Amino acid sequence: MTNPIITLTTDYGNGDHLVGVLKGVILRINPDVHIVDITHDIAPFDLLDAAVTIAEASKYFPPRTIHVVIVDPGVGTERRPLLTRADTNYYIAPDNGVLSLIYDREESLTVRHITTEHYFLQPISQTFHGRDVFAPVAAWLTKNWQPASMGDAITDFKRFNIPKPKQDGYVLKGVILRIDRFGNLMTNFTAADLPEEILKSGKLQLLLNDKEVSRLVANFAQGQPNEPVAVIGSSGFIEVVVNKASASRVLSIGRGTPATLVLG
Amino acid sequence: MTNPIITLTTDYGNGDHLVGVLKGVILRINPDVHIVDITHDIAPFDLLDAAVTIAEASKYFPPRTIHVVIVDPGVGTERRPLLTRADTNYYIAPDNGVLSLIYDREESLTVRHITTEHYFLQPISQTFHGRDVFAPVAAWLTKNWQPASMGDAITDFKRFNIPKPKQDGYVLKGVILRIDRFGNLMTNFTAADLPEEILKSGKLQLLLNDKEVSRLVANFAQGQPNEPVAVIGSSGFIEVVVNKASASRVLSIGRGTPATLVLG
Amino acid sequence: MTNPIITLTTDYGNGDHLVGVLKGVILRINPDVHIVDITHDIAPFDLLDAAVTIAEASKYFPPRTIHVVIVDPGVGTERRPLLTRADTNYYIAPDNGVLSLIYDREESLTVRHITTEHYFLQPISQTFHGRDVFAPVAAWLTKNWQPASMGDAITDFKRFNIPKPKQDGYVLKGVILRIDRFGNLMTNFTAADLPEEILKSGKLQLLLNDKEVSRLVANFAQGQPNEPVAVIGSSGFIEVVVNKASASRVLSIGRGTPATLVLG
Repeated sequence: MTNPIITLTTDYGNGDHLVGVLKGVILRINPDVHIVDITHDIAPFDLLDAAVTIAEASKYFPPRTIHVVIVDPGVGTERRPLLTRADTNYYIAPDNGVLSLIYDREESLTVRHITTEHYFLQPISQTFHGRDVFAPVAAWLTKNWQPASMGDAITDFKRFNIPKPKQDGYVLKGVILRIDRFGNLMTNFTAADLPEEILKSGKLQLLLNDKEVSRLVANFAQGQPNEPVAVIGSSGFIEVVVNKASASRVLSIGRGTPATLVLG
Repeated sequence: MTNPIITLTTDYGNGDHLVGVLKGVILRINPDVHIVDITHDIAPFDLLDAAVTIAEASKYFPPRTIHVVIVDPGVGTERRPLLTRADTNYYIAPDNGVLSLIYDREESLTVRHITTEHYFLQPISQTFHGRDVFAPVAAWLTKNWQPASMGDAITDFKRFNIPKPKQDGYVLKGVILRIDRFGNLMTNFTAADLPEEILKSGKLQLLLNDKEVSRLVANFAQGQPNEPVAVIGSSGFIEVVVNKASASRVLSIGRGTPATLVLG
Repeated sequence: MTNPIITLTTDYGNGDHLVGVLKGVILRINPDVHIVDITHDIAPFDLLDAAVTIAEASKYFPPRTIHVVIVDPGVGTERRPLLTRADTNYYIAPDNGVLSLIYDREESLTVRHITTEHYFLQPISQTFHGRDVFAPVAAWLTKNWQPASMGDAITDFKRFNIPKPKQDGYVLKGVILRIDRFGNLMTNFTAADLPEEILKSGKLQLLLNDKEVSRLVANFAQGQPNEPVAVIGSSGFIEVVVNKASASRVLSIGRGTPATLVLG
């Protein structure tokens, strides 16, 4: 009844024809598809950025949504195109680990190597598999809903580990995973990593380079002007933020900066 | 018959999962919604920018369109979520004045404080009410079309005044409200602020810092190369423009610059 | 049955209300239209950039798609609005050559001067024909599918030539037409311009300023670290690329740089 949904997450940017081509390819195969842009501004070739984005966004989509994720530094090589079924959604992406957080999260998982070339756009280029492989396979899937027709299930797909905090004596060593548009610093600490007394007291000692964050608060507005505070972010990770300002700018902290949590 | 329309205007940017999450939340509640991006590039926390954008864009949408406007520096505080009916459209936004121009424009206005928590995404975070409150309420409204079910009408909602030009002796003092992508400078003067003789003769004296604009013309092409000229912009405001160039760059003028119109 | 498709390609940017206004105008006339953003980030007034973008993207859309292309430095002058039928798609654009590559490509072509003002949004502004002319005509076309109702066919429409490579003794002189987000350099050489021995051997001599490219390879991954190599790009043009890096940055080469291919 309802139109099928295909989402797009790429590092193509919005400046040229690439995204338009993906949409055209999909709509020519099935003009009833509802295409939803998640983002096309993944940093070029940044698999971790894409992995976090699709894992966070896909949680909220309805059953049978098809997510196309194209960050593909290995285009033209032997890396395989994959069709993954995880819980109630489908994912179409290159086999380079970009779905690692989906693999980690989902209990029920079928990963297929897409090999049925008659669903591809011919001739297949060596440089634009978004157009020639990923988009058309997504569109055909909305016509037949037969994942098995796309290729056989495999188990040796690539995955990488999101860096996890490591305990080292009295400290927990983590990292700034990501910085958003507001300058909020997302660490790889989750609420579960915090000792109970920090959650109760709201007092902590979190070191970023030579800067210290000493309060865990419920929301941005509880921070004093220019005071960096920690909050439990909407994705479950601890974020360092400054009320109505950019923590990244206030603290001069970039992505990849070590974050050290003093325990006890 | 026709699918319901929800538009999105935010300061989230397009660089991460936030916009995708909003879309997922809406489509999981009602997969038939037609989601329309107005912009996600409102300057962070810039209520005036958002107020002008939604006021200009919403004029053109069909009846029963639902506009979700999320620029929300007070997220997590007691600021209220609102559902406004103005003429034939609905607006869902925080109570921080971001709809001020809609309030000013519309005769028939009902503003409700959204309190019916069973329409929210649980548990409600302290930092992402776009996901937990605004998007789901918009989607549920397309299912029941019962604004009264969302909360009671209020009258003490916040509004701010768009800076209006002020007469001071022989001059009218205004300001550059906004600069668009082409470098056109939008003032807060409207055609109605201009004396009849300026409209007839096309001669005026408009001062921006130490620069002077001396002609009001019908369109960009009537300007000489590098000549800043005034036009009546598409939104009704007087704009200072340079034909095929950026007035902002040619004049070195930024947003907030005083604009002084000499009268008589 | 299926909803009509209107695509948008503009230089409006995504930062203000302009794109939202176009979408509102279309949906108020026909709320069943499926609006597809190709890009709004054409460089301001850049007709060549827009011409390449719409030509590349439009190849892939289904029959009866209507492409609205608004890059319009002459807005408010006598330049005509056009409705073009080329093969199975429609194009609505100003008469400034922005459709030149479509004209070059398509055998079957009907170009109409849009004159039926009752399809326009009244009063017509002098500065925003996207809102007042192009968007409403596109929307009305989805209601009546009668291109002839929009105006008479003409043959004196404007077109410009994409710069073609020129032979000069033992060299072929071309140019960098475009640089994409990854820093790939698109030349105006096509595979057909290359001598057979280059295609066979993969050896060539392509000069960009004082830099030399000496290998034509099948895909990015065949390049050595930091080695600029030539590939046949997905649009058929020869591109200079660097594996997992930006050729533009590695070579310090910008758009418009001469590219010289040594023959034999």
